[in-house]
Amino acid sequence: MKILIKNADILTINDHDEVLYGTDLLIEDNLIKKIGKNLTTDADKIIDAENKILMPGFINAHTHLAMSVFRNYADDLPFWEWLFEKIIPAEEKLTGEIVYHSSMLSIAEMIKSGTTSFNDMYFFLDDIARAVKDTGIRANLALGMVGESKEDKHKVQTNIDLFKKYHGSLNNRLKISFGPHAPYTCSDQFYEYILEGVKETGANIHTHLSESQNEINESKEKYGCSPIVRMEKLGLFGYPVAAAHCVYLDDNDLEIMQKNNVTVVHNPSSNLKLANGFANVDKMLQKGINVALGTDGPASNNNQNMMEEMHLASLIAKGYLKSPTVLKATEVLRMATRNGARVLGYDNLGIVKEGFLADLILIDTNKAHLQPKSNLAATIVYSAQASDVETVIVDGRILMENRELVGLDLEKIIQKANQVQKEILN
Amino acid sequence: MKILIKNADILTINDHDEVLYGTDLLIEDNLIKKIGKNLTTDADKIIDAENKILMPGFINAHTHLAMSVFRNYADDLPFWEWLFEKIIPAEEKLTGEIVYHSSMLSIAEMIKSGTTSFNDMYFFLDDIARAVKDTGIRANLALGMVGESKEDKHKVQTNIDLFKKYHGSLNNRLKISFGPHAPYTCSDQFYEYILEGVKETGANIHTHLSESQNEINESKEKYGCSPIVRMEKLGLFGYPVAAAHCVYLDDNDLEIMQKNNVTVVHNPSSNLKLANGFANVDKMLQKGINVALGTDGPASNNNQNMMEEMHLASLIAKGYLKSPTVLKATEVLRMATRNGARVLGYDNLGIVKEGFLADLILIDTNKAHLQPKSNLAATIVYSAQASDVETVIVDGRILMENRELVGLDLEKIIQKANQVQKEILN
Repeated sequence: MKILIKNADILTINDHDEVLYGTDLLIEDNLIKKIGKNLTTDADKIIDAENKILMPGFINAHTHLAMSVFRNYADDLPFWEWLFEKIIPAEEKLTGEIVYHSSMLSIAEMIKSGTTSFNDMYFFLDDIARAVKDTGIRANLALGMVGESKEDKHKVQTNIDLFKKYHGSLNNRLKISFGPHAPYTCSDQFYEYILEGVKETGANIHTHLSESQNEINESKEKYGCSPIVRMEKLGLFGYPVAAAHCVYLDDNDLEIMQKNNVTVVHNPSSNLKLANGFANVDKMLQKGINVALGTDGPASNNNQNMMEEMHLASLIAKGYLKSPTVLKATEVLRMATRNGARVLGYDNLGIVKEGFLADLILIDTNKAHLQPKSNLAATIVYSAQASDVETVIVDGRILMENRELVGLDLEKIIQKANQVQKEILN
Repeated sequence: MKILIKNADILTINDHDEVLYGTDLLIEDNLIKKIGKNLTTDADKIIDAENKILMPGFINAHTHLAMSVFRNYADDLPFWEWLFEKIIPAEEKLTGEIVYHSSMLSIAEMIKSGTTSFNDMYFFLDDIARAVKDTGIRANLALGMVGESKEDKHKVQTNIDLFKKYHGSLNNRLKISFGPHAPYTCSDQFYEYILEGVKETGANIHTHLSESQNEINESKEKYGCSPIVRMEKLGLFGYPVAAAHCVYLDDNDLEIMQKNNVTVVHNPSSNLKLANGFANVDKMLQKGINVALGTDGPASNNNQNMMEEMHLASLIAKGYLKSPTVLKATEVLRMATRNGARVLGYDNLGIVKEGFLADLILIDTNKAHLQPKSNLAATIVYSAQASDVETVIVDGRILMENRELVGLDLEKIIQKANQVQKEILN
């Protein structure tokens, strides 16, 4: 299949943050084949992108998408009440069927808001994989694991089995990572089992790290060091790691992250909503650490809107560091796209570049809040809304056109989500 | 004209934050006539609001709407460079015609995002008033004034003249306030002239107060006290005042604000984007201070999206104060509606209540990111987007229906805004 996009204003997000005005782009199969002026070809489909912005789709680098079933169910509560009285008791009632329908709802939300791939950690991965297959989105799924002793080793085996079953499937749209939950829910011994599995499979690791002050305090008390130092000692950073949150990093932690090429996934909404605070992303970027962006799950956000996450990331950094020049629009756009590609395990994703994967979005700028026409990066980060995304292409296939999902019945997805919510929440 | 809205889920924003499910509402002329189950009447128009949320329209309590011409023109810059090298030189080229078209664009943006009234401070008020007239929105306009000595007194006279010409016009949709810019741009003598004008007219005052640390330092150096203490001494607080920003208030300042019934207008986007920091809104609310919400102008935001402002206000308060229970969804909804009514000078606005003004919005919840159906206040504050607003009614008149502006040509408004932008920016 060949798709020709005509006359777009392209935010390439390349090394020079280049913007190409009034430029054509040809997609062949699942790749960006050619970018240039006045391209002509025997395309199967031609999209007129006059006055539209073409850019890489958003990469949501940390979420628990099936938690959409808990959206707006437990808000404005103290953390422990939220987690132990609301979320965990509800999670205990989860089934594969509930997870499938919640995942379908979240993927619909993601496509509608321009997200073309996501990095997830949760349970019932067969059912999430089914939703990935049925929707056409790109994903890397990790099994969320907590573990203490030998009795928990079977979880690692499950993750290995999932890796063998799904990794690289769906035309390489679906990948599998390992998901040790967090340093405060995994013992040193359990990490050893995890690393055996990682070594066996070559999988990436997706985990939570240094999210709260409490976590740091407990780690220092129990292990005599920060969670980051402990992870380095245990050898976790010998493998590709995506570390969500990282709100509390000292200079030594930052040094370790940089030295070991660990990707930090910044989750501004969740860090604020659960009152953990402000991650110093500017310092990470200054040190050359790869920082991606994620929404976290819909129970602590309460949406999966990467436009909102970009806006928030930039604004809170300026306010927190008292500097209006940090986390510029161009930097935040990189976080939401190319910086997340590494987390997913791709080196040809997240930039509008010939030969790269055709995961692309078109944004309609013919809106009152996006006019008059001015700096395009600032327009996306400071003014745009998720609903300005008009067309979404993943792996060369159109998943949304003129805001209509292609091949998905949104009414039915919403109806099913409400039905499974009733099963789980009283 | 009678409009009957059937089967809405009503967020009343009344004293008990009451939610009325599946309830009808009758508008007669410009007022909410009746609220109840199964209302029948000879309505001129019936709106089916099944599965829709009905609530008061947003009140944007502090903006400079004509600055949309500068949207995304000067971002990620140090404050002084932004203001003195970019914004002020551009503002010097403003004309009434430019202000009219920029205002039309901003009002279109506001209606599209559920804002039914706004509190503005700027120049060329005849032209902004014309845009208010032409669009049907509700507004309170203040003339932005800076002044030192007798030579500036004519500005106050201009504000008096504007008051006499427009205040209470357009079926009381248009009001006029006095707009002394800020303590650091107005001398004690100029405030005397301002207060004479206020006394003569009975107008409200709309000003910037305690926005930056710099402002506090300068005030203490020059006047030996905080801007708030100075304003009290000068007698400003003897009249109804809306004070935008208030990022830097000490306990004594808070005491003065509370004692004098001064309304604080919180502007989270602008405070963050210009790197001024975090206003402690929770402390203000705890003290019983009336806190409204505003976007500030589109040059420092860069949009006029009250949904985004609510979301930001709640999240940054939780992160900044390290408490997930502050600025609850219900509190933030009050800030964005009823708390702003006082600023505009109404005592029958901002609540869904019989006898109150019919400034109402309908929100379509049939979206992936708003499902499954759960707590409605949280849904609006944490999940909704401006584009979920489907219908907007101001003063009993429908200004948007099914996302289409009624009686306004958006294409032409956008075209004109781009045209005047070219006249002013090189």
